[in-house]
Amino acid sequence: MTMETLLLDLGSRSYPIDFGTGIIDGIGERMKQLGMRGQTAVVTNAVVAPLFLERVKNSLETTGFPVLPILLPDGEVHKNFATLQIIFDRLLENRMERSTILIALGGGIIGDITGFAAASFLRGVNFIQIPTTLLAQVDSSVGGKTGINHPLGKNLIGAFYQPKLVCCDLGTLTTLPKREFVAGMAEVIKYGLIRDIDFFHFLADNLEAIMALTPIPLQRVVQTCCAIKGEIVAADEHENDQRALLNFGHTFGHAIESLTGYDQLLHGEAVAMGMLMASDLSRRMGWLSDAEFETIENLLRQTGLPLTIPRFTTEAFLDAFSRDKKVRSGRPRFVLLKGVGHGVVTADIPEELLTRCLEQ
Amino acid sequence: MTMETLLLDLGSRSYPIDFGTGIIDGIGERMKQLGMRGQTAVVTNAVVAPLFLERVKNSLETTGFPVLPILLPDGEVHKNFATLQIIFDRLLENRMERSTILIALGGGIIGDITGFAAASFLRGVNFIQIPTTLLAQVDSSVGGKTGINHPLGKNLIGAFYQPKLVCCDLGTLTTLPKREFVAGMAEVIKYGLIRDIDFFHFLADNLEAIMALTPIPLQRVVQTCCAIKGEIVAADEHENDQRALLNFGHTFGHAIESLTGYDQLLHGEAVAMGMLMASDLSRRMGWLSDAEFETIENLLRQTGLPLTIPRFTTEAFLDAFSRDKKVRSGRPRFVLLKGVGHGVVTADIPEELLTRCLEQ
Repeated sequence: MTMETLLLDLGSRSYPIDFGTGIIDGIGERMKQLGMRGQTAVVTNAVVAPLFLERVKNSLETTGFPVLPILLPDGEVHKNFATLQIIFDRLLENRMERSTILIALGGGIIGDITGFAAASFLRGVNFIQIPTTLLAQVDSSVGGKTGINHPLGKNLIGAFYQPKLVCCDLGTLTTLPKREFVAGMAEVIKYGLIRDIDFFHFLADNLEAIMALTPIPLQRVVQTCCAIKGEIVAADEHENDQRALLNFGHTFGHAIESLTGYDQLLHGEAVAMGMLMASDLSRRMGWLSDAEFETIENLLRQTGLPLTIPRFTTEAFLDAFSRDKKVRSGRPRFVLLKGVGHGVVTADIPEELLTRCLEQ
Repeated sequence: MTMETLLLDLGSRSYPIDFGTGIIDGIGERMKQLGMRGQTAVVTNAVVAPLFLERVKNSLETTGFPVLPILLPDGEVHKNFATLQIIFDRLLENRMERSTILIALGGGIIGDITGFAAASFLRGVNFIQIPTTLLAQVDSSVGGKTGINHPLGKNLIGAFYQPKLVCCDLGTLTTLPKREFVAGMAEVIKYGLIRDIDFFHFLADNLEAIMALTPIPLQRVVQTCCAIKGEIVAADEHENDQRALLNFGHTFGHAIESLTGYDQLLHGEAVAMGMLMASDLSRRMGWLSDAEFETIENLLRQTGLPLTIPRFTTEAFLDAFSRDKKVRSGRPRFVLLKGVGHGVVTADIPEELLTRCLEQ
């Protein structure tokens, strides 16, 4: 399969998203083609480095890009100021300049933290994403959200900072643990639910082939997700309005992650539970039929996503909501469904319905 | 004297810079007039708070803006990650939302760190500058450079992030220690040197009145500086090109600050020394006459700026240069003068001339 490219249209901040298998071996050539030059720092972790670092390094060095590898500790618990400072320390100890290109090689955590480092180092240097997880390929690497966690919540400190290139190598997904692939599928299903009923049906009809990482349907999945996300981001880069649609399942999901201390569930797993809750609330609002709700629940279940929501009090949920970034004037906003394929953002939820949904 | 306003033209990021005496008492009204609403956090320090916090707070509260005051420790040594985190902690403990308006009330350090906090908190919230030092009014509060220091150098971590309003109350300068006012004058003289020979002569001719804080010439000084800076920033917001002109005296100045450990000299004092060195180098290049050099030296001296440059080896200087943010491909770039009022950016300095200048 040859490389395909999608252009994310953000005016002067537009950039290509490349899709293909084995394309990380051509990253240096591609960067040259895009007119880039300078030193690079490849930020990755001890899990991803043995798998892909040498290949990326080879491609960069043979095309004239010197490489400084920076290894970060792995895991959400390290997505913090201390880890961010490791990047700055290494860059400055090595006297890296404004022409530095920071390359994130890894999953969403590596991408988010490297992006924030790129936004802040010398007030901004070039940035490239090489996402190596399904979640990162379909979600976090596209759209420019970067950041780190704060003890009081996830992604509370960060920047909107767009990369110059996203390189989605489907081949990197073959080494991904099954549980992580499944978790990434939660975000994939999300795109169908909020925006594209045909894509939702495509997922349901081809689930087995996708889960077996069959190249053609897999690339279609990743490309479609990036296309939907790109369209929404292009219309609302800084999330004043419809970009919030992408948070379907996330208000509940973030609350579940926060209440379980971030160490039991993968992000996608919490989002799957959140999508189920948001679908349930949509049904209680009269916006989704019982049949539609069941179709959604079935696809999530067949994908292998955990749907048993941990028990917390309604108060605990409401408290967690109030810390959500999307809160406006103290009221949490929810993304709900008016039918499969049609997400809407609303803060007008009757308290009684919300409480009943949370009690369940 | 009534309030005057200058519009800094940066497209969708344009903002007004207000000048006047006593205008901090109308800050809330002005924000309402500009269509702002939300909670505010006023970031200041223990030196500035007793002078102006109550006045700002009164104006905000009577116009319907709730105020969270955040007091930071005073001094350049605290312009770091730990202090930045104080702001995030206080904002999050108080559940501040995306509609929060961060207001910097103080000098350049408060402005820089608050601006970076505003750029990064929830990936960006509204930001207002109320600079209370001459240096901050004529330089750091305008143009969107924000940031913190790293142990390896000043302002190495930060963001380009524009405020929504800059409120330059000349009245706040009456409480400024004389030494700080004098240091701020270094940046004032800089604008004349790089861009405006008439302004340079105005300063020389009205120095006594300016140093006595006479309202009319003082306001002309601050407005002219902001106008020149605004023009340069509007042409090159992200310092790819001519914005570097504003660094006249800063390559040498930063090196002097770094070599003296940041605790002996004020920024403006180091910049004055740096401007003297850059003028000397310009003379050695044959770009500035001896008479012009003397005029510059005289004005700096009459202003009361210290001009005795601490002794360091040439190697120490060159090493400090190599850490400068403006380094490109390992070569430091300098801003020199081709006559008074005409700054130029260059990396083509014969090593011998540079060495001779540094040895002096």
